[in-house]
Amino acid sequence: MAPRPNLNIVPFVSVEHMMQLVLDVGIETFLLELAAVIEEDFRRWEAFDKTPRVAAHSPDGVIELMPTSDGQLYGFKYVNGHPKNTRDGLQTVTAFGILSDVASGYPLLLTEMTILTALRTAAMSAVAARHLARTDSRTMALIGNGAQSEFQALAFKAIVGIENLRLYDLDPTASERCARNLSGMGLSVKVCRSSQGAVEGADVITTVTADKQYATILSDNMVGPGTHINAVGGDCPGKTELHRDILLRSEIFVEYPPQTRIEGEIQQLGPDHPVKELWEVIAGRIEGRRSEREITLFDSVGFAVEDFSALRYVRSKIGVTGLHQGLDLLADPDEPRDLFGMLLRCEKRLKAA
Amino acid sequence: MAPRPNLNIVPFVSVEHMMQLVLDVGIETFLLELAAVIEEDFRRWEAFDKTPRVAAHSPDGVIELMPTSDGQLYGFKYVNGHPKNTRDGLQTVTAFGILSDVASGYPLLLTEMTILTALRTAAMSAVAARHLARTDSRTMALIGNGAQSEFQALAFKAIVGIENLRLYDLDPTASERCARNLSGMGLSVKVCRSSQGAVEGADVITTVTADKQYATILSDNMVGPGTHINAVGGDCPGKTELHRDILLRSEIFVEYPPQTRIEGEIQQLGPDHPVKELWEVIAGRIEGRRSEREITLFDSVGFAVEDFSALRYVRSKIGVTGLHQGLDLLADPDEPRDLFGMLLRCEKRLKAA
Repeated sequence: MAPRPNLNIVPFVSVEHMMQLVLDVGIETFLLELAAVIEEDFRRWEAFDKTPRVAAHSPDGVIELMPTSDGQLYGFKYVNGHPKNTRDGLQTVTAFGILSDVASGYPLLLTEMTILTALRTAAMSAVAARHLARTDSRTMALIGNGAQSEFQALAFKAIVGIENLRLYDLDPTASERCARNLSGMGLSVKVCRSSQGAVEGADVITTVTADKQYATILSDNMVGPGTHINAVGGDCPGKTELHRDILLRSEIFVEYPPQTRIEGEIQQLGPDHPVKELWEVIAGRIEGRRSEREITLFDSVGFAVEDFSALRYVRSKIGVTGLHQGLDLLADPDEPRDLFGMLLRCEKRLKAA
Repeated sequence: MAPRPNLNIVPFVSVEHMMQLVLDVGIETFLLELAAVIEEDFRRWEAFDKTPRVAAHSPDGVIELMPTSDGQLYGFKYVNGHPKNTRDGLQTVTAFGILSDVASGYPLLLTEMTILTALRTAAMSAVAARHLARTDSRTMALIGNGAQSEFQALAFKAIVGIENLRLYDLDPTASERCARNLSGMGLSVKVCRSSQGAVEGADVITTVTADKQYATILSDNMVGPGTHINAVGGDCPGKTELHRDILLRSEIFVEYPPQTRIEGEIQQLGPDHPVKELWEVIAGRIEGRRSEREITLFDSVGFAVEDFSALRYVRSKIGVTGLHQGLDLLADPDEPRDLFGMLLRCEKRLKAA
């Protein structure tokens, strides 16, 4: 590797810089471009080292490390999931991530990923739907109107062509806030009084609720033929959103079966229940939707490759925009074996100052 | 948990701040205090969640994530090991770490750990030697005089009472640099022309070489009765420093057997070869050294609990010293479910500016 200048300085994208980046690029363009990078990485799925995420569970939540590598770049995300955090005015999910150079092990980027995760999850959902939903899908029911909801809505508008949105949340103020946030963004939005009302006539149903429990956001009779279900909220052991009967009627697509069988909706099914891998659809190896009446289900739990794509995309953007700061994260003595000498020179410098 | 102010801001200790912290506290005091925290954590070893490190190997090196938790705090270190990096003017090992609150999943500290790892490795080595070396040990051979060497020397001075140091490295300029860096620090230092010369009369032998290969830094006839060996450099599969016969003559102490059997000197031995766990010695459950003539060996590979201790120690120090900066790492909307609204408010703010 050729020497780089300022080896010790790692570009850092703060929350403020991430927001500026998203706004500069435009939210929908950001989602479209990110979706293209995710598709690119899913097409070369087999190039990735797919380590299962490393989870530290506690009574209140989980802290996870999600690493992956394509042999050139290495990425990982730190992410927590603490459903009760909202009670204390905290985010349920916060995240940050690192992208590194495999050849040297040096980090190339540190970035906030709370906002970025919401964007990549939405882009991923919409990528799946573009391959699985009926091509004439224009109406989406969005059940669970928390922190992810607007991102899901705009991703489905930009990537799938959704025009009509039907919102439902146990907490009506959440739906109202979501509708307000989306006003003027080109979607026709209706707040519904029941999940039943929201799904009537919907081509796509997105479930993205947050409670950590076995819940039944959707029951079997609510899902008509031809629907695509984007199940985002059921994403850890003990947390599901769909009635088991829906799963039995659906063609199920997943990111990475060993992880989804533990964390996804299909934790309700036997370990041998057939599922299809989304990357094979994207790579053109297997068919996605096979008929207008089929029910397709993307049992999304979030996988490290998606974060890798997001990190890669952000890295490609910060060079031009300058929306980052340099972080003095790595000790970089002039003579690599002389770490201690660096300390002594610092002492001299401080004394001289 | 009571609300904290500026939840989104994570204290960050840069390389520069870490150096200032070490110099402010004083290197030897820092090592002594850090050793006390390590001992404290080793005494409550059973309280820790001991996940094996997550390693991503590549032809040139490895990138590892080392997480652990005591149920209250969660820590992890990112660390690379790339022996060929020095050729390109890069560090063999660079590292940074995070300490988080288990109850909320929120990070509490981000810090450089390249310097901190050298300090914690040295403190750990010296803690082990205090429990395993003969109490009258005053002379240490230090074989391998790279980036870790001065830290090892000062830790053994401060914690074990070593007064005389005998240096050897394949590269004589490394030994000379080490001797020069240590001048005036209260150690009597001699540069030797062979490892044989360095170990003559040494009470403690520390091996800390860097090449990733099966090497024989020490052969069997070089180790006399009563010696304590602190084997630091053999720390990954395919990288050992000691002749197998030395291992067979020694009482072997390790941090965490499942990891050391893969990464340590004992990868040369059968999977059932008896080893003792250092934490049990520190906790007073088993004996360390049992006679003046026994050869004791600390087969050190570095374990996540030591990094946890180091993170905990640094966190305890930054409050008083102010040697940190605030990092805008976490999105923290006023209303936790309204992440998107935070983006909209940012847009308004930017337009108004």
